[in-house]
Amino acid sequence: MTDSKIFRRLTYGLYVISSLKEGRINAQIANTVFQITSAPLIVAISINKENLTHEYIQNSKVFAVNILPVSTPLEMIGHFGFKSGRNLDKFGEVAFKPGQTGSPLLTSNSIGYLEAEVIQSTELSTHTVFYGQVMNTEVYSDEEPMTYGFYQQLKRGTAAPASPAAKSSRSEQAEKAESIKKENLIKEGPTMQKYECPVCSYIYDPEKGDPDSGIEPGTAFEALPDDWVCPVCGVDKSQFQPVD
Amino acid sequence: MTDSKIFRRLTYGLYVISSLKEGRINAQIANTVFQITSAPLIVAISINKENLTHEYIQNSKVFAVNILPVSTPLEMIGHFGFKSGRNLDKFGEVAFKPGQTGSPLLTSNSIGYLEAEVIQSTELSTHTVFYGQVMNTEVYSDEEPMTYGFYQQLKRGTAAPASPAAKSSRSEQAEKAESIKKENLIKEGPTMQKYECPVCSYIYDPEKGDPDSGIEPGTAFEALPDDWVCPVCGVDKSQFQPVD
Repeated sequence: MTDSKIFRRLTYGLYVISSLKEGRINAQIANTVFQITSAPLIVAISINKENLTHEYIQNSKVFAVNILPVSTPLEMIGHFGFKSGRNLDKFGEVAFKPGQTGSPLLTSNSIGYLEAEVIQSTELSTHTVFYGQVMNTEVYSDEEPMTYGFYQQLKRGTAAPASPAAKSSRSEQAEKAESIKKENLIKEGPTMQKYECPVCSYIYDPEKGDPDSGIEPGTAFEALPDDWVCPVCGVDKSQFQPVD
Repeated sequence: MTDSKIFRRLTYGLYVISSLKEGRINAQIANTVFQITSAPLIVAISINKENLTHEYIQNSKVFAVNILPVSTPLEMIGHFGFKSGRNLDKFGEVAFKPGQTGSPLLTSNSIGYLEAEVIQSTELSTHTVFYGQVMNTEVYSDEEPMTYGFYQQLKRGTAAPASPAAKSSRSEQAEKAESIKKENLIKEGPTMQKYECPVCSYIYDPEKGDPDSGIEPGTAFEALPDDWVCPVCGVDKSQFQPVD
C-alpha cells in the first residue's frame, strides 16, 4: 500500500535548469538536482521528457543548474515553471549571460550556478535522469537557497507576507462577487469576466488570453482547459475568483 | 573552473537507508533520495559502493528509506552514519520492525518510510544510483523532516541549544589542558589520555578504543588514523581536545 503523502516529506531545492539547441536557449524549473560523486564531480538531474528543455539537453548534451535564492519572486518561478519555451522566448526579458557550455546563466535571482556535460542518462517512464560532469561553477552570494517545501508554502500563501485579515476580507468580497457572477452565467452563458488568482493576484483577462500557455486571446475563463493553472504561481483554475 | 562551495548550496534531506542480505539487516545514512516519476512511483537513491548497505541492496534488490525528523539526535545519525555494519549489528539496540521487503523500518526517530524494489541501477565512479519502484509506505507523523543543511549546522554547533558562553569557557579550559598535555607528550610519548569531541561531547577512551569503527581497545588517541572521525557526529580527529 502506498500513501502519496510520504513523497511530500522528501526534501528538495528549487532550480532553473537551462540548455540550448542550435543557437536557441531555454530553461525550466526543477527540484531534482543532486551531487552523486565528488571525483569526478558528477551531478544528476531529472527532467520530464515532454519538456522543451529535455529536447535541448538531449541534443546539445550540456546543461546549467541555476540555484534560486529563498527571495525568488513567485512570478519568476511561474515564468520558468508554468510556461513553455515553445510559446515564448523565456529569456526575452530576463537578465542572463551565456556560460562556457552556451547554456544561459541567470544573473539575478540566482545564488550561483554549475555547468555540466552529459556523460550518461537513464530513461524511466515519463522522465530522463541526466548525469553531468561539472566543468564550470560560480557562486554569486551566500543567500539561503529556496527549498521546494518553502516554495509550496509560498504558493499556498502560508509563508506570504500579506496579512491574513486582508486576505480574508478580499476572499469574502470575491465569494460575494462569484455568487453574483454565477447567477449571471446561468442566465447569460460564458462571459468575458476577468478572474483573479487567490495566491499571487494574477488576473486572467479573456481579451488577452494566456498566449504563453497556448490560450488564444478571446478565450472565456470558463472555456479554459481543466488542467490550466495560474501561469505565475501554478494555482489550480478551480481556485480562481471573479473580479468585481 | 569549479568551486566546491556551489555543491553546498544544493538542498537535501537526511535519511536512513536500510536493506538485507541472507537474513542479516543493515542501514546507513544518506542524503540523496528523490522521487523521479509518479506513475509508476519510482525513487532514486545514491549509495557509495564501499558501504555494506550497497552490497545488501545489490544482493536483495530491495531497500527502505526512513525519513528522519528534525529532532533526530546526533548520536542516532552517528550510529548509522559513522559506524560500519561490518563491525557491529546496527539494529542491536535500535527499535525497528521488518517491512514487506524484509528491510528494517525505524519505529522511532522516523516520520515515515517507503519500501522499494530495485528495477534499474546506474554505476558512476564511486557510487551506484539505484532506481526503486515503491510498493509500500507509511507516514507516522507530520513532524518537519531533517535537512542535510540543518544537520551540518547541528554538527558545527551553530544550531545547538548550548549557550555560546558555556562553549567558549569549556573551549578555553580545553586549550589550557591541551597545552599541558602536549608538553607531557613531548616528554613521555603517547599516553592513555582521554579526548573529547568539541561538538557532541563524545569521549574517546583509549582503554575502550572504538571497536565499532575497527579501533582496538588499548589504542592511544595519538595512534588513531588521521581519517578517524567522531563516531557520534563525524567531527574530525583534529578537533578533539584532551580531557582534564
